[in-house]
Amino acid sequence: MRADGFAFTVEARDGAARAGRLVTPHGVVETPCFMPVGTKASVKAVEPRELRELEAQVVLANTYHLYFRPGAAVVAAHGGLHRFMGWDGPVLTDSGGFQVFSLEGTRVLRDDGVEFSSVYDGSRHVFTPELAMRTQEDLGADLVMAFDQCAPGTSPRPELEAAVERTTLWAAACRRAHTRRDQLLVGIVQGGTDERLRRRSAAEITDMGFDAYAIGGLSVGERGDEMLATVELMDELLPAGRLRYFMGIGDPRGILDVIARGVDVFDCVLPTRMARTGTALLRDGGRLNLRNARFAADLGPLEDDCDCYACRTFTRSYLRHLVTQREMLGAQLLSLHNLRVLLRLAGDARRAIRAGRFAEFVSHVAEQGSAGGRAACRAE
Amino acid sequence: MRADGFAFTVEARDGAARAGRLVTPHGVVETPCFMPVGTKASVKAVEPRELRELEAQVVLANTYHLYFRPGAAVVAAHGGLHRFMGWDGPVLTDSGGFQVFSLEGTRVLRDDGVEFSSVYDGSRHVFTPELAMRTQEDLGADLVMAFDQCAPGTSPRPELEAAVERTTLWAAACRRAHTRRDQLLVGIVQGGTDERLRRRSAAEITDMGFDAYAIGGLSVGERGDEMLATVELMDELLPAGRLRYFMGIGDPRGILDVIARGVDVFDCVLPTRMARTGTALLRDGGRLNLRNARFAADLGPLEDDCDCYACRTFTRSYLRHLVTQREMLGAQLLSLHNLRVLLRLAGDARRAIRAGRFAEFVSHVAEQGSAGGRAACRAE
Repeated sequence: MRADGFAFTVEARDGAARAGRLVTPHGVVETPCFMPVGTKASVKAVEPRELRELEAQVVLANTYHLYFRPGAAVVAAHGGLHRFMGWDGPVLTDSGGFQVFSLEGTRVLRDDGVEFSSVYDGSRHVFTPELAMRTQEDLGADLVMAFDQCAPGTSPRPELEAAVERTTLWAAACRRAHTRRDQLLVGIVQGGTDERLRRRSAAEITDMGFDAYAIGGLSVGERGDEMLATVELMDELLPAGRLRYFMGIGDPRGILDVIARGVDVFDCVLPTRMARTGTALLRDGGRLNLRNARFAADLGPLEDDCDCYACRTFTRSYLRHLVTQREMLGAQLLSLHNLRVLLRLAGDARRAIRAGRFAEFVSHVAEQGSAGGRAACRAE
Repeated sequence: MRADGFAFTVEARDGAARAGRLVTPHGVVETPCFMPVGTKASVKAVEPRELRELEAQVVLANTYHLYFRPGAAVVAAHGGLHRFMGWDGPVLTDSGGFQVFSLEGTRVLRDDGVEFSSVYDGSRHVFTPELAMRTQEDLGADLVMAFDQCAPGTSPRPELEAAVERTTLWAAACRRAHTRRDQLLVGIVQGGTDERLRRRSAAEITDMGFDAYAIGGLSVGERGDEMLATVELMDELLPAGRLRYFMGIGDPRGILDVIARGVDVFDCVLPTRMARTGTALLRDGGRLNLRNARFAADLGPLEDDCDCYACRTFTRSYLRHLVTQREMLGAQLLSLHNLRVLLRLAGDARRAIRAGRFAEFVSHVAEQGSAGGRAACRAE
């Protein structure tokens, strides 16, 4: 590997599904692994020590938001995100590209970067691959992402193609600009669900020889079957021995779908965002809206077989009371539960792959209920 | 004692200050003791297991709010508040009287109770001593409060006098109505800062022979010196061997002032309310407004010698970031800290009283900084 202190090994395979082990300077990540999102260097409503308890292994943070508030220099003065956010395990930062392209405000695309308006105060800024690298070096995460252009899933082909070309140019620029040897730089493949563009993007990005690869440009409005077909294609195109990161998937069934197609790590704001609206995720993909009056006198736990603090301690009736009374503790407890559901699902998938019974495991989970839909996953 | 499973012993005295031990069916309370307030059966933004970690001993809940949401029957179906709110230590419920008299909505005072409008939906209700007792029996706290009338500190004498008379009548009615032997019923003395009325109220209430007494009608707008003079008078008038509860004080200096005058337990919403506005309490009575830009790059802890999770783990810079970005974690961490400051202060006072050096301890704390003001303390 180019980065020091990192190693990735695929230790078991079951069909296309993989169980692996990523070594980082801040600890080991067993894959498949769900990564909680801490957009502004805080996984909303969850204490870092609770993330440990939930068996989270990597936490994400968002370059765009931290660039503006509190600013990369403040984080750098702490020695980086680990110390800043009180999480001593591995951290991954995105590049800021997704926010630059998706948040409101007029933007001007240039070959060297993007000019856009800050969501914080409307001021004009230019993000370039070089600035994305410098900022991520200041933030000090273990895994850092190339600056890419993510086109919406419904974009016409010429736009997708332009995004692929720009993503390749910027990936090369990121490679040149990135200097920290203790950070692993992840290359991102784009191309929407267009097979020819995916093949082209994958060829161009893998030719550069990154240590790990992300599948970008999915979960952004495309059809579910096309999304999965694209992940299957990526399984064929990406080097078998490298870590694969699916950016933005967090419903239980979607997670199992991408694990089955060779994805190692994935992230989503879904569990914590749903918690704040009073919705509990269930392991089988179902959801409970705790505002529903049918829970008013329900003395059972949120989920029978869950081992989280919320399920061990409180009734649905109490959780509904907290949610309807807008008590912060409601969002806190539901966040713990929702994260635990996904972290545990990924951990169980890992064990099933190692035992060579992943397909059986997936059928078992699916039998327990009907799945929820996919949902937007990026920074909250 | 009239109640089963309770005992109170004053184990040490230092001047008027007392260190004692209250045995309840849900555990022992070492006094002096600060009691966190969980108005709606949740200490806002704090998990019950964290209350344990902070060394909280008793938690309050609010009869008025729980009567309306979720309703006493839902709590009773859980077997009471302990199970409902996931706190297996001692619980105290107030009577609802304070809210009936202080919350918005037109009310009609009658000798048998108060007719008022619910803050939840404006519907008309009547609270009586009998209903306050029945509701508190359903809620199932260890310590329950008599239904009293708390007149504002600035009320003219005839109003204070009427409140004293009504409080005595209602206290007698509560005694007759209360049947649970596993609950300790606390009598409340009123009378504002008027010495003659205080003497009268104390005589009438103590004549009934309650197991514990609360000093009501203070911290409601009266002058600080008159408040303290009244607490001194109460020290003289209340039976020396009974628990004494000052309703609603939560700034560090105020706490030491009432402990010095013979108070055993006290409560306030101040620590958690201030946390939600981004303000940290300091042990010496000072306050830090974390929105202040001077904390932007401050790498020190909130308070140097504090042992709470927030101080052990995070910088002022990070906490300011959370507060200014409205991250819920900011309110969570400041709530932990602010509660810990008061719980630890009361614990240190307890040890100082036992060691016969309480006055020295108070001077030492006062030297560390200038005190904050008193603040409204009731249900938040």
